[in-house]
Amino acid sequence: MFSQDDYQWMNRALELARRGRYTTAPNPCVGAVLVKAGVVVGEGWHQRAGEPHAEVYALHAAGEEARGATAYVTLEPCSHHGRTPPCAEALIKAGVTRVVAAMVDPNPQVGGRGLRMLSEAGIKADFGLLSAEAEALNPGFFKRMRTAFPQVTVKLGASLDGRTAMASGESQWITGPLARADVQRLRARHDAVLSSAETVLTDGASLNVRWDELPPSVKAVYPKEALRQPLRVVIDSQNRLTPDLPLFKTTGPVLLARHKVDGDWPEWVQQLELPLLDGKLDLVSLFMLLAKRNINSVLVEAGPRLCGALLGKGLVDELVLYQAPKLLGDEGRGLFHLPELTRLFQAPKLNLKDVRLVGQDIRITAKIV
Amino acid sequence: MFSQDDYQWMNRALELARRGRYTTAPNPCVGAVLVKAGVVVGEGWHQRAGEPHAEVYALHAAGEEARGATAYVTLEPCSHHGRTPPCAEALIKAGVTRVVAAMVDPNPQVGGRGLRMLSEAGIKADFGLLSAEAEALNPGFFKRMRTAFPQVTVKLGASLDGRTAMASGESQWITGPLARADVQRLRARHDAVLSSAETVLTDGASLNVRWDELPPSVKAVYPKEALRQPLRVVIDSQNRLTPDLPLFKTTGPVLLARHKVDGDWPEWVQQLELPLLDGKLDLVSLFMLLAKRNINSVLVEAGPRLCGALLGKGLVDELVLYQAPKLLGDEGRGLFHLPELTRLFQAPKLNLKDVRLVGQDIRITAKIV
Repeated sequence: MFSQDDYQWMNRALELARRGRYTTAPNPCVGAVLVKAGVVVGEGWHQRAGEPHAEVYALHAAGEEARGATAYVTLEPCSHHGRTPPCAEALIKAGVTRVVAAMVDPNPQVGGRGLRMLSEAGIKADFGLLSAEAEALNPGFFKRMRTAFPQVTVKLGASLDGRTAMASGESQWITGPLARADVQRLRARHDAVLSSAETVLTDGASLNVRWDELPPSVKAVYPKEALRQPLRVVIDSQNRLTPDLPLFKTTGPVLLARHKVDGDWPEWVQQLELPLLDGKLDLVSLFMLLAKRNINSVLVEAGPRLCGALLGKGLVDELVLYQAPKLLGDEGRGLFHLPELTRLFQAPKLNLKDVRLVGQDIRITAKIV
Repeated sequence: MFSQDDYQWMNRALELARRGRYTTAPNPCVGAVLVKAGVVVGEGWHQRAGEPHAEVYALHAAGEEARGATAYVTLEPCSHHGRTPPCAEALIKAGVTRVVAAMVDPNPQVGGRGLRMLSEAGIKADFGLLSAEAEALNPGFFKRMRTAFPQVTVKLGASLDGRTAMASGESQWITGPLARADVQRLRARHDAVLSSAETVLTDGASLNVRWDELPPSVKAVYPKEALRQPLRVVIDSQNRLTPDLPLFKTTGPVLLARHKVDGDWPEWVQQLELPLLDGKLDLVSLFMLLAKRNINSVLVEAGPRLCGALLGKGLVDELVLYQAPKLLGDEGRGLFHLPELTRLFQAPKLNLKDVRLVGQDIRITAKIV
């Protein structure tokens, strides 16, 4: 159904889309290529929410050449008036004769309507080319559109024998500098970083992205001026945090998840009041509210209690585990506190997605199944 | 110094040597190739202790063609009268004109004497070609020759969060069938398997090699008739083991390490009386005595206390860790009990040698540094 050329141009569109991966949130990354008689006449990718979509850039670059061209887009062109007019309409007006979309947009405001608009205008509209690759571009956006929950990734650094800290709490540093730079990359790729008051108090964590510490491959595509800080969400059910902590001295918004709001905070610190469930803050409500605030993806950096509670409630999608080639002994701190797990058959299972070395450490990326 | 041909023939000799890897103990695996005018005139490998050495097979195959040939051997030819006459002498008698040895034999009974015998007989004797590969053939034999201690490998199977069992002790099965078959391969490659009375009692472990469960790649080179059981060494300081346990119903020798010998045992079960050190059996003495019994390599399959004690005493060379893609929670059993380790800088470090998938599980092989 799709020709070799189709594959080639869609791969190019995917490549373009990836350029936006640090900057488009809460929008998805999208790439577009306009091809006429085997020649690219226009290219574009979405760069920032509120700015034009990929198709608009490609049409602008093509000008009159768009007439009779085929458009390759990594996501179905939009059909609704959002912050920008619908792209399906723009493609029709420009005289494009065929549109190939990698996948249908799961955004309920689109959901096939863009492709139908095109078909009804007499344009050949195909979809499903390299859809797995297109899905992988925006796991958070797609999960939020389909489920109204953000994509949740738990990041942990541990020894080979599964310890994130000594019994005393000492944990700096178990993993090496390249693994820590890779964590900066993870933070930069997520809309929010979630932690607990406990971690913020014991580790003095600031949970921000420090551009200078990003891996060179990220710096190359993510200029310092464009740096955006993820929303730092801290669970502070007992109102233990105070404005003098290092977390509040670094730039970037903070959201304190509390049972009762309290205190005087700088304007970049918001408080969110959450109900209690069995004496604990209701984490399901928290994630639903984060999704409502257009948070597509959450990186969890916390201790065994919060990580275990999230896992136990089925809220975790993925685990990124850095394992340092060290042994800390069985009195060290574990990864997940799962008191309800007593039999082996109940153990959460994972699908390994990627296992590789990052410096001296092993990085394991796995989906919770 | 060495030509491309030299490399080629030594690689062939290494390949031949590997054929003996399950059967030569307590001797090392050795391969030999005789080459004359660019043509192999004889090959051989050592198959079983008490049977001829690699050189003898190669010389026998070559017959008169050995005269004027070059001999490639993965280990220095022996110079002493052991169970067989010295190979250096046989090479001289056969009229070989050059000998290339991958490495000097660290056996104090040889230690360069074989090469000197050859040189004194006017034969060009070179060594040091592909020596790292030759070292890797016989880590246990070489360690025992150099240090009078066996090579010790700790094998553990755990979840991704570093748990070898549930808090209840339930552990069957955390890892998958291919990882378990790989453990059978490890047992077959070691001269002894070490465990504790605790593990034998709780897991009903038999610690033997079950030929039917070996991976197909091992079965292909290790016929069922040739199967040898490793010596099963069980630390039983409180004389808790009784002859009715599954361990004693399976074939293969057993050595009970005890403080006081006691009880009536079948003839394949021996007892070894060991001194106490701080109220525990002296593990250093145990390993020295095992080395005296020609045990080159010991595979440890035990719980966190024995594994931790061995690690703490510096007796462990290598770790083979199978990690199942599961999470068992922080109340599960750990890998190493290291009560004296309280600060991060004291943590034992490892050098990763190999990380790969075995079925669904990750297998990490690492040297303790």
